[in-house]
Amino acid sequence: MEWVPGRMPVLECLRAKKRKAYRLKVAREATGLDAIRALAAGIPIETCARAELDRILPDAVHQGVLLEADPLPIWRAETWIERPVAPAAILVALDGVVDPRNFGAIVRSAAACGVCGVMFAKDRAAPVSPVAVKSAAGGMEHVDLIEAANLVRALDTLKKAGWWTAVLESDAPMPLWEADLTGHIVLVIGGEEKGVRRLVRAHADFQLRIPLPGAIDNLNASVSAGIALAECLRQRALHKPDALINS
Amino acid sequence: MEWVPGRMPVLECLRAKKRKAYRLKVAREATGLDAIRALAAGIPIETCARAELDRILPDAVHQGVLLEADPLPIWRAETWIERPVAPAAILVALDGVVDPRNFGAIVRSAAACGVCGVMFAKDRAAPVSPVAVKSAAGGMEHVDLIEAANLVRALDTLKKAGWWTAVLESDAPMPLWEADLTGHIVLVIGGEEKGVRRLVRAHADFQLRIPLPGAIDNLNASVSAGIALAECLRQRALHKPDALINS
Repeated sequence: MEWVPGRMPVLECLRAKKRKAYRLKVAREATGLDAIRALAAGIPIETCARAELDRILPDAVHQGVLLEADPLPIWRAETWIERPVAPAAILVALDGVVDPRNFGAIVRSAAACGVCGVMFAKDRAAPVSPVAVKSAAGGMEHVDLIEAANLVRALDTLKKAGWWTAVLESDAPMPLWEADLTGHIVLVIGGEEKGVRRLVRAHADFQLRIPLPGAIDNLNASVSAGIALAECLRQRALHKPDALINS
Repeated sequence: MEWVPGRMPVLECLRAKKRKAYRLKVAREATGLDAIRALAAGIPIETCARAELDRILPDAVHQGVLLEADPLPIWRAETWIERPVAPAAILVALDGVVDPRNFGAIVRSAAACGVCGVMFAKDRAAPVSPVAVKSAAGGMEHVDLIEAANLVRALDTLKKAGWWTAVLESDAPMPLWEADLTGHIVLVIGGEEKGVRRLVRAHADFQLRIPLPGAIDNLNASVSAGIALAECLRQRALHKPDALINS
């Protein structure tokens, strides 16, 4: 079992019902928790001092509420890839995103944009930690979390299954908005330090950049991911308006 | 004087030369600082224990390097508005963004996208703190920081001077990509909790939303800002390719 910290993560955990919840701990002075309490019907609610919540999860911002629940289900890539997906589905793959806040923010954007899953390499990713869960603002409950033992191999399998792979790189040849992103698409986002690995890049169908005219030549990984996801949505709204209904 | 924490912020501070630097403090074991040392020619460099840097700025990630420099120049809105700007200039205005990490991340994206300035209300904004400076990854040195005593009045003055104002709201009527964003544009980004205030919204030319088909109905403020900025760049690349050269 694990602790889910913060109002949005707890609310979405209860709403999504993806995992079993065992008890809710609420700080004595916390207010504005009606929606959470309503969804928590049937789960024991314990009122305690705020300091006790601080002690349970010292690193995460709990906003006066912690939910004890089963761990988030993590798919193995080989298993996940065999599942059916909606038309024009979008998958996000992370290659070396190690900052838990960036990881969480990307999962939040992914969930908002109707992405079906977020894939990450087993040994080159931020853990699904309370800090990441808090940053995802409930998004963790609404996308499939997929762990790849070998990301290059997983991307190859996806390509064979009909997915297009697009890598975002600051020095890539093609502007993001010139690629056709309306098919089944895997968006590969590189890590904070080194971007996408050369081997991953070489296997991609598209190598895309967000053309930046300013003095700073790179964006935060979660901002890049958000921009690429929004471009996928824009192209779908323009060319395949029906696809959005199914996602 | 103030301390600039972290490698990218220090590097860009020295590169931009927007403010005078007085001394560089470097952790004894820090490596990979050649670019910073080269730019710091003429500034005293002090080597010290990492713990001393921790003590000077306990809240910010310093990555083994701190630069003492003049504070960042902050423009008064009335003064800034009278300055000439490039054609198709973009300005970002923040209405109640209080998280210093979001503030910094937005400034980073703004600097990368060639935005001329970031405006914020005097009493409803995150301070230009070391945490914000670190999150901006050097962006603070490359955009004008503009403080408005009254944001509504400043936006009205900008409108009279020929700027278009676009407010981003999750429940706005028009999808982001349906608005013409190729003119002088002010992008108004709302705060983490309450979004853009009603009065600010009522004064805007465009009320735009990023259409989100997923289970989570909102994005992080810095991700929203990045998506809107990228859409401005996309439209400029498509319709006014020359404008980007001047910005």
